[in-house]
Amino acid sequence: MVLLEEDERSEALRTLPGWSYDDEARALRRSFRFRDFGEAFGFMTRVALEAEKADHHPDWSNSWNRVEIALTTHSAGGLTRSDLVLAARIDAVAAPLALEGGAD
Amino acid sequence: MVLLEEDERSEALRTLPGWSYDDEARALRRSFRFRDFGEAFGFMTRVALEAEKADHHPDWSNSWNRVEIALTTHSAGGLTRSDLVLAARIDAVAAPLALEGGAD
Amino acid sequence: MVLLEEDERSEALRTLPGWSYDDEARALRRSFRFRDFGEAFGFMTRVALEAEKADHHPDWSNSWNRVEIALTTHSAGGLTRSDLVLAARIDAVAAPLALEGGAD
Amino acid sequence: MVLLEEDERSEALRTLPGWSYDDEARALRRSFRFRDFGEAFGFMTRVALEAEKADHHPDWSNSWNRVEIALTTHSAGGLTRSDLVLAARIDAVAAPLALEGGAD
Repeated sequence: MVLLEEDERSEALRTLPGWSYDDEARALRRSFRFRDFGEAFGFMTRVALEAEKADHHPDWSNSWNRVEIALTTHSAGGLTRSDLVLAARIDAVAAPLALEGGAD
Repeated sequence: MVLLEEDERSEALRTLPGWSYDDEARALRRSFRFRDFGEAFGFMTRVALEAEKADHHPDWSNSWNRVEIALTTHSAGGLTRSDLVLAARIDAVAAPLALEGGAD
Repeated sequence: MVLLEEDERSEALRTLPGWSYDDEARALRRSFRFRDFGEAFGFMTRVALEAEKADHHPDWSNSWNRVEIALTTHSAGGLTRSDLVLAARIDAVAAPLALEGGAD
Repeated sequence: MVLLEEDERSEALRTLPGWSYDDEARALRRSFRFRDFGEAFGFMTRVALEAEKADHHPDWSNSWNRVEIALTTHSAGGLTRSDLVLAARIDAVAAPLALEGGAD
């Protein structure tokens, strides 16, 4: 797994508008808000299936209708292409559901 | 649990257009088709949460992107209000996702 | 995907004692019974993750604490090694949970 | 929802050996470690079903095989009987699976 260069990272973030880069954690972050717990956990189940398929897993937390996701490649010590691919898959899963994105 | 009268059942079916009544099984049936397995199983997870909340569970099957659901109240030997309530909840969960409904 | 020869299939079934071969469906079948719906659906979620990882999915049904699974490779028209691998993974997931196996 | 008295809380913690009380968050906390992501997420699905049934939801996070759970009753500003009941349900679900408990 090759770490992204700074300019690759900047360019990738332009195609992932809901995500921001956390410099300290060297991770992509995004927050999602859903209508209720059921919708949030249904989303999490779909992300879990994508993660298992890609063998690349998020660090994430949930509180009722909120899901906070951080993506990084622990073995590489920062962002790799696997994080960008998973971020794009997560956005596709969330698109018909999420009330709002953004790092709120 | 009180069985629905025939006219209650007919009236209910008018408000649940995707569902049909299976006379032999005394059950409401609906088929759902999704984009892929992940979307189908995410839907099933949300239905599972609704079912557990209502303490009323579907008889259902899945094959890749297809989910077939039958609702009946086994303890009552046919349809009750619990089946109508769960059918409406399932429709609400499926609405933003399902490619097609109908008893196809 | 190569279909299993009859003797490969017979030998495989000896290592998968809970499963039986359904000649007509050309599928491996096993029934599982759990303590309640929650345990059954937790099991299904784990099988869903294994299936997505392997890109090979079961035909299955659930009714409260019961899960019936059929494994076949539709594209090959019968059993392949993918079915044996998934059957063994399903057994590993069920082992600490299932009350009984067998094609009951 | 009535807040637990301090002595009720102390007594409850004696029956929930894996859990500790976080004074600042006014929450019960427990960490779980599983064999892999699949086992961790299967556990989370079962907890989600319990939470939805009880209409009382955890604050929790996951990183591959780790699940960290905090239980508190936000509307009451601290621990109530709902937290104790959910903690006991979570322990029952984890018992056949978790490699270790404790606030590690």
